[in-house]
Parts: sequence; C-alpha cells; structure tokens
Amino acid sequence: MTYLEQLGKNAKAAGRTLALAGTSEKNEALRRMAKALLAASDEIIEFNKIDLSNSRKARMSSAFLDRLSLDEKRIQDMANGLIETAGLDDPVGEIIEVINRDNGLEIIKTRVPLGVVGIIYEARPNVTSDAAGLCLKTGNPVILRGGSSALNSNKAIAAVMRRALSETPIHQDSIQLVENTDRETALGLMRLNEYVNVLIPRGSASLINEVKNNATVPVIETGVGICHVYVDAGSDQNMAVSITVNAKTSKPSVCNAAEVLLVHEDIYREFLPKVYEGLRKFNVEIRGCEKTCRVLEAALPAGPEDFDTEFLDYIMAVKIVSGVDEAICHINLHGTRHSEAIVTQNHDNALRFTSEVDAAAVYVNASTRFTDGGEFGMGAEIGISTQMLHARGPMGLRELTSYKYIIKGNGQVR
Amino acid sequence: MTYLEQLGKNAKAAGRTLALAGTSEKNEALRRMAKALLAASDEIIEFNKIDLSNSRKARMSSAFLDRLSLDEKRIQDMANGLIETAGLDDPVGEIIEVINRDNGLEIIKTRVPLGVVGIIYEARPNVTSDAAGLCLKTGNPVILRGGSSALNSNKAIAAVMRRALSETPIHQDSIQLVENTDRETALGLMRLNEYVNVLIPRGSASLINEVKNNATVPVIETGVGICHVYVDAGSDQNMAVSITVNAKTSKPSVCNAAEVLLVHEDIYREFLPKVYEGLRKFNVEIRGCEKTCRVLEAALPAGPEDFDTEFLDYIMAVKIVSGVDEAICHINLHGTRHSEAIVTQNHDNALRFTSEVDAAAVYVNASTRFTDGGEFGMGAEIGISTQMLHARGPMGLRELTSYKYIIKGNGQVR
Repeated sequence: MTYLEQLGKNAKAAGRTLALAGTSEKNEALRRMAKALLAASDEIIEFNKIDLSNSRKARMSSAFLDRLSLDEKRIQDMANGLIETAGLDDPVGEIIEVINRDNGLEIIKTRVPLGVVGIIYEARPNVTSDAAGLCLKTGNPVILRGGSSALNSNKAIAAVMRRALSETPIHQDSIQLVENTDRETALGLMRLNEYVNVLIPRGSASLINEVKNNATVPVIETGVGICHVYVDAGSDQNMAVSITVNAKTSKPSVCNAAEVLLVHEDIYREFLPKVYEGLRKFNVEIRGCEKTCRVLEAALPAGPEDFDTEFLDYIMAVKIVSGVDEAICHINLHGTRHSEAIVTQNHDNALRFTSEVDAAAVYVNASTRFTDGGEFGMGAEIGISTQMLHARGPMGLRELTSYKYIIKGNGQVR
Repeated sequence: MTYLEQLGKNAKAAGRTLALAGTSEKNEALRRMAKALLAASDEIIEFNKIDLSNSRKARMSSAFLDRLSLDEKRIQDMANGLIETAGLDDPVGEIIEVINRDNGLEIIKTRVPLGVVGIIYEARPNVTSDAAGLCLKTGNPVILRGGSSALNSNKAIAAVMRRALSETPIHQDSIQLVENTDRETALGLMRLNEYVNVLIPRGSASLINEVKNNATVPVIETGVGICHVYVDAGSDQNMAVSITVNAKTSKPSVCNAAEVLLVHEDIYREFLPKVYEGLRKFNVEIRGCEKTCRVLEAALPAGPEDFDTEFLDYIMAVKIVSGVDEAICHINLHGTRHSEAIVTQNHDNALRFTSEVDAAAVYVNASTRFTDGGEFGMGAEIGISTQMLHARGPMGLRELTSYKYIIKGNGQVR
C-alpha cells in the first residue's frame, strides 16, 4: 500500500466516526481545534519562521512572503474562522425533499457528506485550518496538500488540530496532511479515485489547470476571476464611479475584484475622466483601447492580452463598446464566468445583461466584490466555483454535501 | 480550427437561440422532432440495416445486435420519449431562492442550463434521440458521440431531428453528432474544455472508465450497478423472496438489477431453498459462498471476482453474512454506490443500513429496480449518477441544469 493509499484508507475509516458524530460533537471539536491553535500560537509561528526563511533564500516575492507569513493576529483569525464555522447550521441530515409515490414508496432525499475531500493549495497556511474546519463540519474527511514552501507551518497547524481531535469521539485522521510535497505525490492524489471523492484546488490559474488536466477524481474548479464592470449609457455616473473604484481597489488581490472596465461609447468622453479621478487616488494603472487613450492621457495602450489577464493588482484594462450587445459578447468571450456587473438605469439592458452574461454572479448596480460566502449569507466558504457542475459561485457548507435517496417500502416490486 | 472545435463553436452559437426560446417553443420543437422521426421511420430502418449487417459480419453478440436494432415499434418509442419530455415541467428559469441582504442587495438564485453537454455512448441508437430531447428541453446544446457500430443509424436519426429543428426558431446545431467515430476524436471531445461544459458517458464500465481517465471536461459518472439485496434475520421471508426475485430477474440487463444476495446466517438454511424456488423459474445461476453451496445443491462455488462483477445476466452471487454490520461492510467495499436494499422488520437495522450504506438509493423492504427517473416521479432521465458531485441517482431534467446568482442593487459597494 502506498503512502497516499494509506492516507485514503485512514480517511475513509475516520469518515465513519465523523458520520456518527452529531452536530454538537462536531461543533465542540471545532472549538477545541480553535483553542488548541491559540494555545500553540508560539510553536506555529516558530515553524512558520523556517518556511519564511527558506522562501526568502529562494528569493520569493514580497506578496508571496506576505501570504505565507503567520503572526498572532493571523492565528487568531484562523481560530475565529473555526469558531464561526461551529456556529453555522449543519446541513448534514437535512431532508431536502419527500416524494410519496402511488405505489406506497416513500422516497426521502437526504443531505449527506460528499465523502473524502482533497484540497490542493499553495503557500497559504490559513487554508489548512479553514478547509479542515469546513470539511469537518460537513462530515467530510479531508486530505490537505499545501504548497511545499508552507510545509513546516502546515505540519504544525495540522498536528495541533489532530491533537485536539484525538480528545473527541471524531478520529484525528478526519484531518490529514500530505507531508510529501513532490509533484508525483500531488499527481497521485489527483488520481486516488478509490479513496477520494472530490478534489478542490485553491489558488492560481496554473494550479487549477494542473489539477483539471491531470485529475481523474472529480474536480471543482474555483477562483480565477477576470471580472468586468460595464457602464451603460444613461447610467448614474456617480454610482458607476463608486462601483468601479470599489470593484477595482477595495482588495485587488482577490478573485472578485474587477480587472476590466467597459464603457458605452455615448458617455466615455464624459465618464472616463470622472472614473479616473477615483482610480488615480489608488495609483491604478490604466491600459486602454485606442479611444480610451485619446481621452485619458495617463492611459497606456492595452495589448490584446490585457483583456485576458487576471491582474490581481492596481491595473485596469478599459475598453469602449458600442452598447450592451458588445459588452455581453466581450464578457462571454473574455470572462472567466465568475462575477460581472452592469451599471445602468435601463431596465431592458439590465435584463439582457443578467440573462445573457454567462457567469456565476451577475450584478446590476452593485460591485463585483460581493461574490463571497459571507456576503451571500452562507457564512464561510471553501472557494468560488467557476464551473457549471455541482455548485456555482460561493461554495459554503451546503455545497460541501451531496444527497442520498432513502426509500421505504413494504414489499414493493416492479 | 479542428472538426471538434467547429462543432463546439456551432454548439455555443446555437445555445444562444436555445436560451432565447421559451418553454412552448422548446416543446413545439420536441413534438416536431417526434413527428419527423415517425415520418422517416422507413429511412432510419434502412440505415439501421447497414449497421446491423456490418455488426453481424463482425460477429457481434446477439445481445449487442438486439440493442443496435431498430424497428417501427422502437422508433415509435423514441418519438414517444420526445413527446413525454415535451410534457415535463421546464426547470430553466425557476427561481430556487431569493436572499434579501441587510445592505439592500437582492440575490436571486435562478436555474440555468448547464451549457454544452457531450454524451458519449455505445451502439444504442435510441440514446441519440433520448439524450437530444432531454438536453434540448433543458436548453443545453448537445454533442452526441455514439458507438461506431451505430453510426449510420445515428446519422439518420440526427439528420431527421436537425431537419425538424430547422423549421423552428431553435438552431439545428443545438443537436450535433460527431460523425468521426475514431478514438482520437473521442479523446478530443473529452478534452474540449473551451466548448464543452459537461460530459456524460452512458454505457459499460469500460466506457465510463475510459472517459473518467481521459477527460479534462467535468464528467458525470453514470450507471455501473453492482446492487445488493440483504435479507436480515426476522424479515418477512415471503417478501424477501419476492423482492430478491424481482430485483434479479425483472430486467437483468439494467444497472438497477441486483447482482448479489446477502443473507443473515441465522436464516439462510430456511431462506435459501425458498428464494431458489423463485429464482430457478428464471434459470438463475447461483454462485455461492461455501455455506450457500452446502445448502443449495445447484449452486456453483463463487470466486472472489463474482462479488465484484456486474453480471447484467441471470446470474446471482450469494453470500451468508453474520448480520447487518457485515452486510454494510461488504456493500461499502464491493458495491458501486448505485442501489442497495435491506429486507428487515427490525427498525434499528433498517436505520443503520440506510445511514451507513454509501449509495445513491438505499431501500428498506423494496426492490432495487425502482432507481429510475420515472419511478422517482422525475420523468425521463439521462442516466443514474454513481458519483457524489452535482447529482446522485436518477438524473432528470433538473439535474441537467446549473444555477446563476442575479444580484440587484442600487449602488452597493463593499
């Protein structure tokens, strides 16, 4: 039996103890995990220092180092995340539908865990506790495979959570970390169909593509967001400025931030200087189409790749379009089916945009930044799905479940 | 642009006409397709004769030839299937949930088509019209890739349906057949991520594995069923006989037929002769464990592989178990998570079985044969999902959809 098969087997076995645990036992386990993380804060920070020092030697970017680094505040946030998850409704066991058939069969559609979930992610140690907490709450044993640069941090975090579990009726193998971070092992996890029910990659487009292209285990694609704001003719321009500036600058590093601004040709001469007033305060670099560059002196000419790039930075591509048709067409061609917004006072255009734009979340007169589990009222999320199967948009606890039909009869045959 | 990319592009473009079509237009199109199939019955049968003759020359089995062959009755059934699909509720556009947030955002979760669906299937020409009808009704352009042995039949059927569509507002490329049936092209379809949203393989375990192992497009696994009937101690033995005989013999070639009988050790001496009385009428071959062979003279000794085989035939593996624990354990190890039944009068055992057996449909005192879209009240189905993601068990129209969040605001930023 290989190392991964052993992890898979452990996960399946632990899943039985997780399935038998009630909501209050799972919540108690989450609170113990939170407490244990806080108590082990110093120890975790020590291990994190090793990872940080290795990554500094490897000359990783400051953004990379920032995502990797842990301090007391961040560990407090991780613990709070677990406590919040304990406070959410438990979807497992929910009766989704009861169908009574004429032949007397009673068909009960019941929510059940997905099974063993594999999470493949990059050097963000907070994902280790976030993902483990959401999976535990939904009764899914989890196999975590984080980036090699965060291995020491992840090992410390996982060990603390497992220790906390060992004092509960839930088996500690409900949370397992793949400690071998070579590519072979990652590929093995992607093909561990006998033991893993679902894989959720979290991270950059290249990570997600790697998983999509190699996995035989079912995958939920998450996260890449080339999001657009389209400002229609006859829109409230102050609102359009506020939405555009918010969508671009309130947190440029996240997937629901806007990357591209589309403006109706009837208003761009008036609108572009206004919106630039707002964007320049954040030093946003504009990469504009020809018309944009003619109006905005500060704009750099956009290359075609600028309309297909998730900048995750203070950069915005701008294009002037002939109307809602061209906007929809551009978005369906260049978007990543994440979050798209129209600013308009025209009811017909709003309707066309919401019907025809193919994305998980389509906004009328609001910022794309709201695509988030918390903002949708589902609490914490495991990611934002950009595929059509299973779940679309923010994936909360309910989206980490499947269902089962339980059919009760008294001898029915067909 | 390759042949497949062209099909993909056509499908996407046709999808726009499908999205704009209302329920009544889609239903009208389905009825026209049905009418056209009936009118072209002779023509289709002529083309089917070519396929049959080729397959006879290739010495295919009589079961294979039976599945391949079309006559007036079968074409009538195909047409009826389309008419029934027209009569089902249209799930597209259904509002699943409305969430009103404190910040004034109104979040409307709306049912939408999945997008372009690829169906990969074997030499069963009826799938061509069934799948096309279900996809059309749910607004999904379909790319059909049937087995090479049925190519002439499928081409005739697809051409007739496309001709019928050309007289409607729905573009005929909403239904396309891959006319190149080599393996390369099938592999290409499995990796056509830019154009295909979901792949649904329908057919044998080997076909499904081929798709699962090669696809980068999200796949819904369907259909392999190694289903069990477990007869508990203290069960109603007449009921148990009737359920076992029905589950095994009413249609052995389908995935919800039972392949394995598990019997409690306290009752097998009494029960096995009774159930065999029923099974022998259908010439069911018994492959039994040691204890079974001691009681039933007619039983052949089972090899280990007999408990991991989808016979799809008048063969049943029989094993004596020590109770509900061993039954659950055996099923979770050897089953395919399709349909599993317990016959018992013991409430606790029924509860344990339904909670702990991991399958799409778990029956208490009823035959496994009911796992079927029609029997569950959802009308026609595209297949039975045996995976956890997206849909589990019978997949009807609703399971051929995804959802989209439409968010209406008045300038909200975050």
